Amino acid sequence: MRIGVIGGGQLARMMIPPAVELGVELRVLSESEGSSAILAATAVGDYRDAETVLAFAREVDVVTFDHEHVPQEVLAALLAEGVVVRPSPAALAVAQNKLVMRERLTALGVPCPDWARVESADDLAAFLADHGGAAVVKTPVGGYDGKGVRVVHDASEVADWFSLGGPLLTEELVSFRRELAQLVARRPSGEVAVWPVVESMQRDGVCAEVIAPAPSSVGAIADMACDIATTIAEKLDVTGVLAVELFETTDDRILVNELAMRPHNSGHWTIDGSRTSQFEQHLRAVLDLPLGATGTHREWTVMVNVLGGPIGAALTDRYASAMADQPTVKFHGYGKEPRAGRKVGHVTAIGDELDEVVYQARAASAFFEG
Amino acid sequence: MRIGVIGGGQLARMMIPPAVELGVELRVLSESEGSSAILAATAVGDYRDAETVLAFAREVDVVTFDHEHVPQEVLAALLAEGVVVRPSPAALAVAQNKLVMRERLTALGVPCPDWARVESADDLAAFLADHGGAAVVKTPVGGYDGKGVRVVHDASEVADWFSLGGPLLTEELVSFRRELAQLVARRPSGEVAVWPVVESMQRDGVCAEVIAPAPSSVGAIADMACDIATTIAEKLDVTGVLAVELFETTDDRILVNELAMRPHNSGHWTIDGSRTSQFEQHLRAVLDLPLGATGTHREWTVMVNVLGGPIGAALTDRYASAMADQPTVKFHGYGKEPRAGRKVGHVTAIGDELDEVVYQARAASAFFEG
Repeated sequence: MRIGVIGGGQLARMMIPPAVELGVELRVLSESEGSSAILAATAVGDYRDAETVLAFAREVDVVTFDHEHVPQEVLAALLAEGVVVRPSPAALAVAQNKLVMRERLTALGVPCPDWARVESADDLAAFLADHGGAAVVKTPVGGYDGKGVRVVHDASEVADWFSLGGPLLTEELVSFRRELAQLVARRPSGEVAVWPVVESMQRDGVCAEVIAPAPSSVGAIADMACDIATTIAEKLDVTGVLAVELFETTDDRILVNELAMRPHNSGHWTIDGSRTSQFEQHLRAVLDLPLGATGTHREWTVMVNVLGGPIGAALTDRYASAMADQPTVKFHGYGKEPRAGRKVGHVTAIGDELDEVVYQARAASAFFEG
Repeated sequence: MRIGVIGGGQLARMMIPPAVELGVELRVLSESEGSSAILAATAVGDYRDAETVLAFAREVDVVTFDHEHVPQEVLAALLAEGVVVRPSPAALAVAQNKLVMRERLTALGVPCPDWARVESADDLAAFLADHGGAAVVKTPVGGYDGKGVRVVHDASEVADWFSLGGPLLTEELVSFRRELAQLVARRPSGEVAVWPVVESMQRDGVCAEVIAPAPSSVGAIADMACDIATTIAEKLDVTGVLAVELFETTDDRILVNELAMRPHNSGHWTIDGSRTSQFEQHLRAVLDLPLGATGTHREWTVMVNVLGGPIGAALTDRYASAMADQPTVKFHGYGKEPRAGRKVGHVTAIGDELDEVVYQARAASAFFEG
């Protein structure tokens, strides 16, 4: 069994451990020699080049992804040669373009914020007028970690984006209590596995902290989150892991914010907190193997991202003090150079008392700041 | 931080996942291209050749081992060049030769079976006469998984070994209730971490099943096992993981059977059952990083080895049926060709009811037989 991953970031990197444990061969097509998943990087090349990707794909049983950026033309070339691609290009198309995503989810009856496709400043001004003078504007493609997203009160604030041509997505500024994320996995034969819904805290548009399960999420909220993610996975025929970022609104609705059809930052807690990690599950799902149990080891798991990282030092240089302080915490480094705002690692704490678990995870991550 | 492992078997292989998670670089000097740890095998060569090992060792911060077979002359050459070797060659010498092991442990006051160094059939006949006419005879070096060990009732049964020259080790045939194993880790600065003592079941001299913790092992037995392993680690200045195989005798004593100064089959359960696996702990210990917590996720963890493996098939070919049957079990494949008696993988179940956990692990492993 040989899996090929396109993209060599930390998500591909974190697929290596379960591949090694399972005895499944993992190959990675990386953008550069210095990538996070360099250990398994059997090829280095441009994922936008069909020949490069085809040469890589011919040597594996199934192709999957570290990111959503492989162009549809390249994906079409893979399908034309009979390569097994999971998730499928048709499903991926929905995750690649936020306008397409809103159209498809709305057609499926999945609850979304009010949204509109805006082609011009006038379109946006009309949307603003209808929504209390404030809205979120997003570039349909290429955004991540808060990039390509702006809160605006006037259409002029995205004049630069309009000047590039092409439509933009605008959405109501949702009044939400908190952000949630629902992770599911689905295999081609149809089986779906669901982890508990989690609370995700953002800082500057980047995921900073995840609490699993989301506190007070039993009952209606958990059911809605699970239904939404399962519906999306099934109706869009997603295979592999699907992460659905959600708003829990102040008027008790659950609305879809974003989708990712791959392992996702909101699921890193599963490595240490769940019977089956999202990375193991993704491998099992794309191989069409039965999915693993998604129960948790303890009542609570808290994951804190290491953002930026120690200035002028490697993450591992701080291990001696951090590990001495927090012997129960698990430490994860992505082998990336620390840089402002960059995700260079994460820490995870598990236990049965939420206050203690939050304290341990935050205390451990503090050793890597500045 | 760069660790070099000499030997490319499944123990080196299972160090890869925690190295990737921690963001620590692992390099492996493997005996062959087809080794179990091939993913991290940065060099292929003979561990008995000082030049080969030195060239490998110069590029890493610390050298450690997948096995005990590196000759002392090669280890001395590493020390002479200032290479950091953990465990130290002086400690390893005790694990490399069973006669040396018995001499050192006896000098330390650690309880062992009655034993003698026998140079001839007459020596052995005398030992047999003193021990009810039965004894165990072992070759001092090179034995593993039951090889180099014979139960004898007459000195002629090891005439072939005597004919090779050199002394043999003979030991009383211990009347034991069961076999236990105590795993500890120690770092150069002195910190020791202890996992619960486990019960280890052998089949044809090979570890077949491990139950963690050993049932009914609270109190005196657990204390004795812990004291013995900690004493050995400290007095022999062992760094990294130390596994001590023990007999629980029918007259309530705990005697040392064998030692291994590296991760050990009796500790594979820690990958899925403990906060810190023996492989992560070994990396932390040889890097002199603080050791991780050794608590367990659930009351019970049961590990069953896959011995031999499916005839004419890869382990992974049976995953579809095994995983469907046992969704909570974790599956581990070593990337080795199935062959009679060979350890090609293991499965682990965790839970709070021992009968269920044993059932799940055995049921899962049964899918890989024949």
